Amino acid sequence: MAKFKVTPWEVEGEVDYNNLIHQFGTKQLTSELINKIEKKAGYSHHMLRRKIFFSHRELDILLKEHEQGKKFALYTGRGPSGHTHIGHLIPWFFTKYLQDAFDVPLYFQLTDDEKFLCKQNLSLKETNKMAYENALDVIALGFDPKKTHIIIDTEYSKTLYKIAIQIAKKVTASTAKSVFGFTNETNIGMYFWPALQAAPCFLPSILGKEKIRTLIPAAIDQDPYWRIVRDVAPKLGYPKTAAIHCIFLPALTGSSGKMSTSTGEQSTIFTTDDEGAVRKKVMKYAFSGGKDTLEEHRKHGGNPNIDISYQWLTFLEKDDNKLKNIYDDYKSGKLLSGELKQILVDKLNAFLKKHSENKEKARKNIDKFLLKD
Amino acid sequence: MAKFKVTPWEVEGEVDYNNLIHQFGTKQLTSELINKIEKKAGYSHHMLRRKIFFSHRELDILLKEHEQGKKFALYTGRGPSGHTHIGHLIPWFFTKYLQDAFDVPLYFQLTDDEKFLCKQNLSLKETNKMAYENALDVIALGFDPKKTHIIIDTEYSKTLYKIAIQIAKKVTASTAKSVFGFTNETNIGMYFWPALQAAPCFLPSILGKEKIRTLIPAAIDQDPYWRIVRDVAPKLGYPKTAAIHCIFLPALTGSSGKMSTSTGEQSTIFTTDDEGAVRKKVMKYAFSGGKDTLEEHRKHGGNPNIDISYQWLTFLEKDDNKLKNIYDDYKSGKLLSGELKQILVDKLNAFLKKHSENKEKARKNIDKFLLKD
Repeated sequence: MAKFKVTPWEVEGEVDYNNLIHQFGTKQLTSELINKIEKKAGYSHHMLRRKIFFSHRELDILLKEHEQGKKFALYTGRGPSGHTHIGHLIPWFFTKYLQDAFDVPLYFQLTDDEKFLCKQNLSLKETNKMAYENALDVIALGFDPKKTHIIIDTEYSKTLYKIAIQIAKKVTASTAKSVFGFTNETNIGMYFWPALQAAPCFLPSILGKEKIRTLIPAAIDQDPYWRIVRDVAPKLGYPKTAAIHCIFLPALTGSSGKMSTSTGEQSTIFTTDDEGAVRKKVMKYAFSGGKDTLEEHRKHGGNPNIDISYQWLTFLEKDDNKLKNIYDDYKSGKLLSGELKQILVDKLNAFLKKHSENKEKARKNIDKFLLKD
Repeated sequence: MAKFKVTPWEVEGEVDYNNLIHQFGTKQLTSELINKIEKKAGYSHHMLRRKIFFSHRELDILLKEHEQGKKFALYTGRGPSGHTHIGHLIPWFFTKYLQDAFDVPLYFQLTDDEKFLCKQNLSLKETNKMAYENALDVIALGFDPKKTHIIIDTEYSKTLYKIAIQIAKKVTASTAKSVFGFTNETNIGMYFWPALQAAPCFLPSILGKEKIRTLIPAAIDQDPYWRIVRDVAPKLGYPKTAAIHCIFLPALTGSSGKMSTSTGEQSTIFTTDDEGAVRKKVMKYAFSGGKDTLEEHRKHGGNPNIDISYQWLTFLEKDDNKLKNIYDDYKSGKLLSGELKQILVDKLNAFLKKHSENKEKARKNIDKFLLKD
């Protein structure tokens, strides 16, 4: 047994993703399913080619139904405990691809209530403010305002609460304990909260005219939530929620687990980091697969498979040829660790420059996206 | 130890109210406090004179603060699992007296969410509909629409949810289990729900300009809710909620516990019962303190202390002299059991006739009372 732990709140150890598929009871993303998506999109996505999205639940059924003319909606989200970082953006990039491919609505949930409930030091005012900030990151990625509905929980809780209590009635404390690891010392808000996170799964059916499935693109650590909602769905007369799962963007420092604010400032790149901060973090902290001396590196080459800058480029560099050249050059010793890091720095800064501009523009469009009641 | 059990969901056995004061840790209502209230009201209320309201928490402090010019608000409510019965009305009559005496706002909570969550067979649509019906019973008692705010939880849950999560963050599952008797099989909606019931305690402070106390007039079985909110209040910077407690109107059948729909149709008089139904229920089911034969009754007299019709009249007949005459005449054997029952029937039917008319008028005024978000 691999020694690792994956829950919605912590990821520890070196994650064995094949083992996780087995452990969670999900299914491997087959080339047949990948082909179907790519055909619909009109092009291949590097996150599918590179198995960054690697697992699913009932995506096969959802796609079959879609071929038969059935609609579906996308649903994903984020817990606004701090600024958005690159790790968060990975599934969002892919969600945009899916929205464009299938021309479907997206419901994006920002859980200011959850982050307030589970973080001792955060006030509701702070998590709510951060939710608005995070919303700008979502909008900045270019989602279509006509098809994209952003939910900040406390701004839409009249609608969500009514759905959540219907879900909550079907979930015992015992189930919540075993799925989420709650204890008797966990606060009663957290106990209820999984029902509120599940509510958007049924929202498209409730707001629309027919009962439709939701498809959740998200990192695989979020899967437990959807196990509960999948159990409850038939009891409430809704179709089960489908999911497509991605792996975690590794921490910059290469420490095991997933990149997160809680593992320290230096292990993450925030969308709010300026050029200098990005350069400094990557140069100083990005775990290197290079050799100890220039001489040795030129002679034996580096190891891209453990080099975090290279790993990050597999998430961010769409061009397979460019990526292959980097791989080969690093492995042969032609490309030095500092040079590889510089490629990542340039990639990140080019993206972040554009992203910051888009965020500023997003400020005046936010109302077009927000669901309020 | 007396053998009885009092929780917000069940009352079993013959309740020893003095023992309950000790068990719950509340205080006896002193004549000093009663005098203060009566002075403010301008007249004495029979429920104070007859110790139907008998216990309190920090009413002494609240009244002292009020004398010093501090405001307060009243808060009470009901779980809309069915039609309103006479037992529910007892604290409401008294709440009206307090509102008139102190000229303070009343927040009245109808918990359609709770009744949906705890009653397996009720849908949210049903409990919501019943909440609207119950609201008419409240309005029919003549509360001032300018000072009376009726909350139907799911219609006001955006506001309530935000307050409730702040409370919930301070309450562990362990506390909820010990106070409410929740188990691992209880649903997660019920776990959260005490926080939502506590929310209106802080609502007057949140909606108003200053932090004020709430005073809760209610039957004593509801006390556990307020123990939690009283613990949480100082942590959130609010003054502690005060309470004034009444005893239970006994079941018509005289069975121990409190009158409730769950103990059977025959043990309750609903505000929707017609004249015939009231007569039939009282004549057939009201437990009698009379003797077995007319002869014996005339000779030895009845026992008003165990006679439910007489007990009910202590709640409903405001005139002490009338009540004393009934007591004496029944005890002497002058008044027969059937005659005593007829007095109660007439009292109930006179009230219900007027009440039904008031309810009909209330239908078009309900929007003046409802808080919605």
